[in-house]
Amino acid sequence: MLTGIKLAFVGGDARIIEVIKYAIELDASIVLIGFDQLDTPLADTVKADLAPDVFRDVDAIVLPVTGMDDAGHVESRYSSQDLVLEEVHFQTLPKRPLVFTGIARKRLSEVCQQHGLRLIKLMELDEVAIHNSVPSAEGAIQMAMEHTDITLHGSRSVVLGFGRCGITLARMLAGIGANVSVCARKESDLARIQEMGLRPYAMSEIHKAVGDSELIFNTIPYPVLTAEVLTRVPKTCVIVDIASKPGGTDFRYAEKRGIKAMLAPGLPGIVAPKTAGQILARTLCRILWEHA
Amino acid sequence: MLTGIKLAFVGGDARIIEVIKYAIELDASIVLIGFDQLDTPLADTVKADLAPDVFRDVDAIVLPVTGMDDAGHVESRYSSQDLVLEEVHFQTLPKRPLVFTGIARKRLSEVCQQHGLRLIKLMELDEVAIHNSVPSAEGAIQMAMEHTDITLHGSRSVVLGFGRCGITLARMLAGIGANVSVCARKESDLARIQEMGLRPYAMSEIHKAVGDSELIFNTIPYPVLTAEVLTRVPKTCVIVDIASKPGGTDFRYAEKRGIKAMLAPGLPGIVAPKTAGQILARTLCRILWEHA
Amino acid sequence: MLTGIKLAFVGGDARIIEVIKYAIELDASIVLIGFDQLDTPLADTVKADLAPDVFRDVDAIVLPVTGMDDAGHVESRYSSQDLVLEEVHFQTLPKRPLVFTGIARKRLSEVCQQHGLRLIKLMELDEVAIHNSVPSAEGAIQMAMEHTDITLHGSRSVVLGFGRCGITLARMLAGIGANVSVCARKESDLARIQEMGLRPYAMSEIHKAVGDSELIFNTIPYPVLTAEVLTRVPKTCVIVDIASKPGGTDFRYAEKRGIKAMLAPGLPGIVAPKTAGQILARTLCRILWEHA
Amino acid sequence: MLTGIKLAFVGGDARIIEVIKYAIELDASIVLIGFDQLDTPLADTVKADLAPDVFRDVDAIVLPVTGMDDAGHVESRYSSQDLVLEEVHFQTLPKRPLVFTGIARKRLSEVCQQHGLRLIKLMELDEVAIHNSVPSAEGAIQMAMEHTDITLHGSRSVVLGFGRCGITLARMLAGIGANVSVCARKESDLARIQEMGLRPYAMSEIHKAVGDSELIFNTIPYPVLTAEVLTRVPKTCVIVDIASKPGGTDFRYAEKRGIKAMLAPGLPGIVAPKTAGQILARTLCRILWEHA
Ligand SMILES: NC(=O)c1ccc[n+]([C@@H]2O[C@H](COP(=O)([O-])OP(=O)(O)OC[C@H]3O[C@@H](n4cnc5c(N)ncnc54)[C@H](OP(=O)(O)O)[C@@H]3O)[C@@H](O)[C@H]2O)c1
Ligand SMILES: NC(=O)c1ccc[n+]([C@@H]2O[C@H](COP(=O)([O-])OP(=O)(O)OC[C@H]3O[C@@H](n4cnc5c(N)ncnc54)[C@H](OP(=O)(O)O)[C@@H]3O)[C@@H](O)[C@H]2O)c1
Ligand SMILES: NC(=O)c1ccc[n+]([C@@H]2O[C@H](COP(=O)([O-])OP(=O)(O)OC[C@H]3O[C@@H](n4cnc5c(N)ncnc54)[C@H](OP(=O)(O)O)[C@@H]3O)[C@@H](O)[C@H]2O)c1
Ligand SMILES: NC(=O)c1ccc[n+]([C@@H]2O[C@H](COP(=O)([O-])OP(=O)(O)OC[C@H]3O[C@@H](n4cnc5c(N)ncnc54)[C@H](OP(=O)(O)O)[C@@H]3O)[C@@H](O)[C@H]2O)c1
Repeated sequence: MLTGIKLAFVGGDARIIEVIKYAIELDASIVLIGFDQLDTPLADTVKADLAPDVFRDVDAIVLPVTGMDDAGHVESRYSSQDLVLEEVHFQTLPKRPLVFTGIARKRLSEVCQQHGLRLIKLMELDEVAIHNSVPSAEGAIQMAMEHTDITLHGSRSVVLGFGRCGITLARMLAGIGANVSVCARKESDLARIQEMGLRPYAMSEIHKAVGDSELIFNTIPYPVLTAEVLTRVPKTCVIVDIASKPGGTDFRYAEKRGIKAMLAPGLPGIVAPKTAGQILARTLCRILWEHA
Repeated sequence: MLTGIKLAFVGGDARIIEVIKYAIELDASIVLIGFDQLDTPLADTVKADLAPDVFRDVDAIVLPVTGMDDAGHVESRYSSQDLVLEEVHFQTLPKRPLVFTGIARKRLSEVCQQHGLRLIKLMELDEVAIHNSVPSAEGAIQMAMEHTDITLHGSRSVVLGFGRCGITLARMLAGIGANVSVCARKESDLARIQEMGLRPYAMSEIHKAVGDSELIFNTIPYPVLTAEVLTRVPKTCVIVDIASKPGGTDFRYAEKRGIKAMLAPGLPGIVAPKTAGQILARTLCRILWEHA
Repeated sequence: MLTGIKLAFVGGDARIIEVIKYAIELDASIVLIGFDQLDTPLADTVKADLAPDVFRDVDAIVLPVTGMDDAGHVESRYSSQDLVLEEVHFQTLPKRPLVFTGIARKRLSEVCQQHGLRLIKLMELDEVAIHNSVPSAEGAIQMAMEHTDITLHGSRSVVLGFGRCGITLARMLAGIGANVSVCARKESDLARIQEMGLRPYAMSEIHKAVGDSELIFNTIPYPVLTAEVLTRVPKTCVIVDIASKPGGTDFRYAEKRGIKAMLAPGLPGIVAPKTAGQILARTLCRILWEHA
Repeated sequence: MLTGIKLAFVGGDARIIEVIKYAIELDASIVLIGFDQLDTPLADTVKADLAPDVFRDVDAIVLPVTGMDDAGHVESRYSSQDLVLEEVHFQTLPKRPLVFTGIARKRLSEVCQQHGLRLIKLMELDEVAIHNSVPSAEGAIQMAMEHTDITLHGSRSVVLGFGRCGITLARMLAGIGANVSVCARKESDLARIQEMGLRPYAMSEIHKAVGDSELIFNTIPYPVLTAEVLTRVPKTCVIVDIASKPGGTDFRYAEKRGIKAMLAPGLPGIVAPKTAGQILARTLCRILWEHA
């Protein structure tokens, strides 16, 4: 329970709404800033303006997944007004609130450090990345289903990378019934891939791995699907690249060769905002609770 | 191989194109009727008109999945002209060709019987129904992914029915990571459901099964999701009904109650026409081969 | 609940003890005949002798899995005395008790029919056979583990037959990580095998299926592993045959060729008597309850 | 291929035989020391005595899994003579052979360092540990099957630890159909456990995790199943402890409480020596090949 803990939410999207709901259930006191146009009424919350002293007595400040840009702007889907955080908001906060964000740009990190506020970048936590790999993998699978005329079941599918997303994607594809090959560079990953009943390929064998593929899922944030590798990929293959921008695919060459390839950023927030929000909510509230 | 075997294809859609390609690979002789507007050239085939004696020397006539309506019309996505089969086409066929169709209406069954032609209704074969359950299940899953803001992984999902589609759907959902309950009426099905690690419910317990569901997949062609049962279904639940028209859901009441419910017919041909075509192709060619 | 229902148990083994415990929990009244040497005291039961009128007021008579032989003998692990049922025990039973047994020989069937008693052969019920396939499959897997110097994971394993035991065994082997091929004769079974992600072989291809196998599990009660087929089986392969006696293997020839092959009857009662007893208990009590 | 590479094998058990066979297939030149009583003839190998200069022209020396004790003794199942390595064997080796062992005691490490020989401790390589987790997990499962009267399928099974063995064991148990809970201390592990569809417990919740367990598998080399925790474990529960000696269980207290608990060391070499040998063979030959 978070009884007696006061949280200030500044802006956000559907995911933050889930965090708010979760915190309400745990009995936290909640102030909402930048939610003037929210349709759904949220019981037991109070709305406030971004007054200079609005954070004075809070235990935590919760920013959206995108955090705050270097000019202080904070995104809010539920407000028509500009939300801008200034130096003044962070200073003289005797309770030293925790500051939660998804990711942090330079300015946010600086201002927190300057004022001795602990900044928690949720998206960088390993546990959040693993939980998020689930909606990411489902999103990638949904895209693959939408852009092919075959079933994933029985397909020759290749996953590039065996990190947090790669593991989840590989298992889920196998769960649906795909024939899954995985490319990874660590010997220990190749051992685990084999233990999972999937077909392991060293990165140096990527040509062989993709040679007769029907689907390729890339999770490596590095140019792995180069023009040279793409010459080995069948033209009918579909590529879903979920690695962070600009992805790991030479999209220009893929198009030239006639291969359908797409970059798919931000899947959790798009395909399963509720689940994505609950993931943040659980970790955020646990950290708050451990801190209290 | 089908060397020396002559097939006449009359109309069809993307699935029939796969059947044609498969038959070409097996070296059959192929006549195409009603494919005048087909873009992709198909090597080793000849086009023909629906002349009265066009079937005279063929070993098999292949109709589209929908077969022929009672006025003799045959659907073709690749022709601008009307394709109409008459009595004359079926008579005086000394080679007694096999007639393949997906499903058969009255007239088609009659005319075949009359002229002593063996009619094979592919969609009614158990093996085809089982193979088809794969694209059907994937289609249902794709729809569920598209219409929810949660992940299937970790969701409380209920499958109604444990026939050919229900088994596949239940396994695939579990493979993705859903918590799967299945409703069935046979004790032996309940035993198998348990063996598969899923949660079994007798039909009489359907109220309990759906009580806290986030997703319901219906495969029972009988009104099982009645208004009375729907009153137990949470309003946020999404229902995907793949049972043959009119499905098993009281859609009028679901809408009234604010539950998102959709009937999803013809999934294989829509979501994975290539796989669906290959399924038909393999069975059709095997039957031809066994017959020859 | 079975409150007010009176059951007479006549003989049995560890499995019957589980049935008794289950019935006690459901509040049945229980008479035990032939349990004089039972160590564990069972609360709320009374012991009785096999007096002529011992069944007079019971609602059901429960025999062991092996039932009664044609001379009236009933096996009991917990009695030093001979248990022999006579005509007299079955006559003048006004309450027409149900008679439960695992299997029934001629005499038992006759005597029940003669006196109008409904005889339930639990082992012949489809639901019981499916539930029992689980301990059977685990028993077969345990034997395979004990008799090989390789892991099942990664092994080339072949399952012959795709009935109640074959399905369970194939799934469990795949769950451990074996590469599983399955031989079946029905096209619809081959389709399901493929849907499950296993390798299907028609019975006519059995030579190919076993050609490089490391383990073979037979569930077909018919001579399928003939000398002729065994010539194709590698000498290092291990065969576990669980089909009912005499199994489906030419054991004489297997031995001659140096292939380790074993017949493994009665696995559920041996490897998991408690689970096997609970399976009987659940079905027996459900039938009693539906009957009442 | 290892053509032109010369290997000296000194002692060993069934696993080393697999390594030798694998190296033969890759066309290595092979000298066997301490195999005088080996029954199976190994083509293309030569036997030698432990002469002072026996390693002079070899590219690698392969010791058994147990390596060499501090007095120079090397175990050999296939020799009646004592095998003792001396200083002299390691000096003046101009080709600087690689030295392979499973584990290394002090003396072996020292002598290699002294003479500038690269020592590869195979058992400490992450990839070998992951591959070895497979026979370890199967061994633990086999023991569980042998010591229970229930099926693993449907059982409440708890895995303690989520390292290389814990992951494999948890997946395999789930593959058989057990209801698997896993205890781990890292939040990221708990996230992965949930992604895998298993029930996660923090180490602090171990009391809850084991509270109604039927089977516990320990992989944590630290006293986690203390007397205090064991008081919460049902008396009918069976504990299989595979952590390195002395395991993580208070065996004395377990016995006092009447809980069946067993320490199970060295499983790969016992239950699947051939697989265990192949694991070593593949990694050893890859390292040799990369080195050459
Ligand atoms: N589209 C979306 O919605 C979405 C959602 C989540 C994550 N992402 C993005 O997806 C990517 C993967 O995320 P993650 O959480 O799985 O990351 P991760 O755990 O760090 O995994 C990255 C994988 O890429 C491999 N890798 C990195 N550089 C490589 C190189 N030069 N050559 C070969 N392999 C290389 C890593 O191998 P090693 O372990 O050997 O380094 C690892 O297997 C990231 O870019 C992340 O931002 C996107
Ligand atoms: N939308 C699509 O694209 C698509 C694709 C394929 C199939 N379908 C349709 O989906 C449905 C299922 O196909 P299928 O191949 O799975 O059929 P199936 O094998 O016949 O299975 C039907 C299931 O419904 C149960 N059932 C039937 N009537 C029932 C009743 N009155 N009460 C309770 N249970 C009942 C059956 O139980 P019992 O075994 O106890 O009879 C069985 O479990 C059919 O209507 C089919 O036309 C649609
Ligand atoms: N050892 C034990 O502890 C134990 C435990 C349980 C069962 N069993 C025994 O194991 C066997 C299998 O039991 P079950 O419950 O799985 O039986 P089941 O459901 O009847 O399955 C039998 C399988 O064998 C196939 N088959 C039968 N005759 C065949 C033939 N001539 N050629 C090819 N295939 C044939 C059947 O195919 P179709 O479907 O095409 O007919 C089916 O796939 C039985 O003998 C049973 O008594 C032993
Ligand atoms: N019996 C056999 O045949 C056999 C075969 C293989 C291995 N083993 C033994 O089995 C054990 C596990 O091997 P492994 O390869 O899986 O090792 P591993 O990858 O290092 O895993 C060890 C696990 O134990 C956890 N752990 C360690 N200390 C802990 C503590 N104080 N409290 C809570 N958790 C703790 C680790 O958690 P963190 O990740 O949080 O540290 C990790 O989850 C070892 O002792 C190994 O020698 C035995």
